[in-house]
Amino acid sequence: MFKPNSDYLKLPGSYLFSTIAKKVNAYQQANPDNKIIRLGIGDVTQPLCPAVIEALHKAVDEQAVAETFRGYAPDLGYDFLRHAMAENDFRSRGCDIADDEIFISDGAKSDSGNIQEIFSQDAKIAVCDPVYPVYVDSNVMAGRTGDYDESTGIWSNVIYMPCTAENGFAPELPKETPDLIYLCFPNNPTGSAITKDQLQVWVDYANKVGAVIIFDAAYEAYISEDNVPHSIYECEGARTCAIELRSFSKNAGFTGLRLGATIIPHDLTVDFEGKKVQMHSLWARRHGTKYNGAPYIVQRAGEACYTDAGKAQIKDMVARYMKNANYILNGLKDAGYDVSGGVNSPYVWLRTPDNMTSWEFFDHLLEKANVVGTPGSGFGPSGEHYFRLTAFGSYENSVEALERIKKL
Amino acid sequence: MFKPNSDYLKLPGSYLFSTIAKKVNAYQQANPDNKIIRLGIGDVTQPLCPAVIEALHKAVDEQAVAETFRGYAPDLGYDFLRHAMAENDFRSRGCDIADDEIFISDGAKSDSGNIQEIFSQDAKIAVCDPVYPVYVDSNVMAGRTGDYDESTGIWSNVIYMPCTAENGFAPELPKETPDLIYLCFPNNPTGSAITKDQLQVWVDYANKVGAVIIFDAAYEAYISEDNVPHSIYECEGARTCAIELRSFSKNAGFTGLRLGATIIPHDLTVDFEGKKVQMHSLWARRHGTKYNGAPYIVQRAGEACYTDAGKAQIKDMVARYMKNANYILNGLKDAGYDVSGGVNSPYVWLRTPDNMTSWEFFDHLLEKANVVGTPGSGFGPSGEHYFRLTAFGSYENSVEALERIKKL
Repeated sequence: MFKPNSDYLKLPGSYLFSTIAKKVNAYQQANPDNKIIRLGIGDVTQPLCPAVIEALHKAVDEQAVAETFRGYAPDLGYDFLRHAMAENDFRSRGCDIADDEIFISDGAKSDSGNIQEIFSQDAKIAVCDPVYPVYVDSNVMAGRTGDYDESTGIWSNVIYMPCTAENGFAPELPKETPDLIYLCFPNNPTGSAITKDQLQVWVDYANKVGAVIIFDAAYEAYISEDNVPHSIYECEGARTCAIELRSFSKNAGFTGLRLGATIIPHDLTVDFEGKKVQMHSLWARRHGTKYNGAPYIVQRAGEACYTDAGKAQIKDMVARYMKNANYILNGLKDAGYDVSGGVNSPYVWLRTPDNMTSWEFFDHLLEKANVVGTPGSGFGPSGEHYFRLTAFGSYENSVEALERIKKL
Repeated sequence: MFKPNSDYLKLPGSYLFSTIAKKVNAYQQANPDNKIIRLGIGDVTQPLCPAVIEALHKAVDEQAVAETFRGYAPDLGYDFLRHAMAENDFRSRGCDIADDEIFISDGAKSDSGNIQEIFSQDAKIAVCDPVYPVYVDSNVMAGRTGDYDESTGIWSNVIYMPCTAENGFAPELPKETPDLIYLCFPNNPTGSAITKDQLQVWVDYANKVGAVIIFDAAYEAYISEDNVPHSIYECEGARTCAIELRSFSKNAGFTGLRLGATIIPHDLTVDFEGKKVQMHSLWARRHGTKYNGAPYIVQRAGEACYTDAGKAQIKDMVARYMKNANYILNGLKDAGYDVSGGVNSPYVWLRTPDNMTSWEFFDHLLEKANVVGTPGSGFGPSGEHYFRLTAFGSYENSVEALERIKKL
């Protein structure tokens, strides 16, 4: 008799954002006349920029004619996009990344969920706490995380690195040595960033202990401060210890278009059973076996992000979201909230008032202000008593949400 | 020190089609003037049909305007597409499948590679031999297949079900009881089909022994004979034992657009540790955690396949490929080859002449006729001395390829 993957059954409840969606839908159905403002899930609201739209139409037309039709994409991505990314996101910043070290995918969520698969079953993971749920959940599904303690929300075989106001939302080096370290900066959910010098400490540490850093750079477009690195490959030695995840979702608004990339340098190797194994070749094999490439039309859309027009339009989109972030950040400060983030990130992270739990504040905000945010505890135990608001709404909605919050 | 997934390292060589591509490229570089005809990889060559192109342009325009812009898609697919599929592919054929039993994905390759993940680590798989490599390779990567014997090409912990001329390319029920049975009909690579009565035997067997059938229906659009089932859910009892994989690649030419679906009925359950577990909920959890939905514009393109215009245009595309299949099948027969397939399938399966190995015949065909096919042995041990040609070229190329083959 067949059996299910019992590790899946260990997962508590459903995925955070599904739970939120259900709660919001139930409230809206019970109160159909109330206008809910959603500053919860990190989804963008501005339409795709003209350069991207134009590239999509052009590519669609190519697919309509036999002479220019393209079927299966190359497993690892079209050269035109790999080259544009390597050149613009890395080499132009002085990062030594070759075109063929870039693997194009259908988004950073898939990549961040799948990347654990190329590591050994007994790999020990370290995560920031709070953290984007996919890093932990995908390792739960793979059977790496031990047992779950419902009362604390802690997995027995995961190294948690608390990020709270006490340490400026920057993790400290773990006492126990991990094999995989997930870092996301600018951070989701706290909106905090770390400097290049701080990140260099992590790179040095990973090289010293033989760990791999999975560096999620999904929010790099929001960096406004000079000393914050856009890529981990700005740090010396990162080629031998770091994998970077890139997304087109938050800069260019591709949340519904799906495009991302994983960077694995050829220098990321490990001696195993007498052979030097490149992690690059394992990921290439995964792509070749379980994936069939991102759509051609979407890869052309990605390429358009690196044209002069595309760059300018994306910069403008990001600026509009950051205007919201700034408004929310300062508005909450004025209202007496304890807040952080929002400077190098579209996320504003606040301490709940009156020591409410995160979910209590969620319900409070939903019912009294009709504003949806994300409970910090959904991101891990150290997120308890915190709450995330995003700058991805419209400016008008951001202003109205703040007015409502101030009235609470 | 981190370690790689050692199961990945067990995989012999590279993915079949990557190997072919490298060989062909090397030959072309050495002989730049020779015109190579590619009847190897199962990629389509006709452009997307007008109904699909129109839907893509319309959806792209929606993404250009804030009022109609759509970000993250629902995890499991847009209702409009799930409904269109359930209605047209299933309920109109008398198959009892609900909209919410359809999970939209970026293609059947991803789904067929990922589906094993929701089953237990010790699940024993049974596959046809020869077989689409992804079924086996994805289980190798998950550590289920035991050891590889290079001389025989056999994994110690896989149940192989030979499909050769001797049994009419239809597998017999295995002697050892499997947990997962991969079936693909019309078959890739042999091009053979089985009747509804034959498939019913498998459904009854799976229900009796408590196995799950993963039924790959990627080629159902090519079925020309009445007694061949388009879906496993045409068989009685399939809701309690079968998962079906659907693709838009081979019917509508979406190989470069990426769209597919997995169907898991709510009735597919297993008693585990005192609870009734729905496999539907495990797959939903995988989607929610490691995937972010197929692009909105691509899902609209999929929907267009079910309009009257879309249906007619797709029927015409399939007919054009089947004209090639018919030409190749009969041409090879005339030339004295031992051939099958090509009636309910775009694949023609031939026995190599003079007892050549599959790869010997590959090289022979490439060098002497400049025609690329796929070595049967690349699909498993029982594929040795067989060879696959596809009908996905143009009619002119199919005719020319046959002329060259006849001259050999």
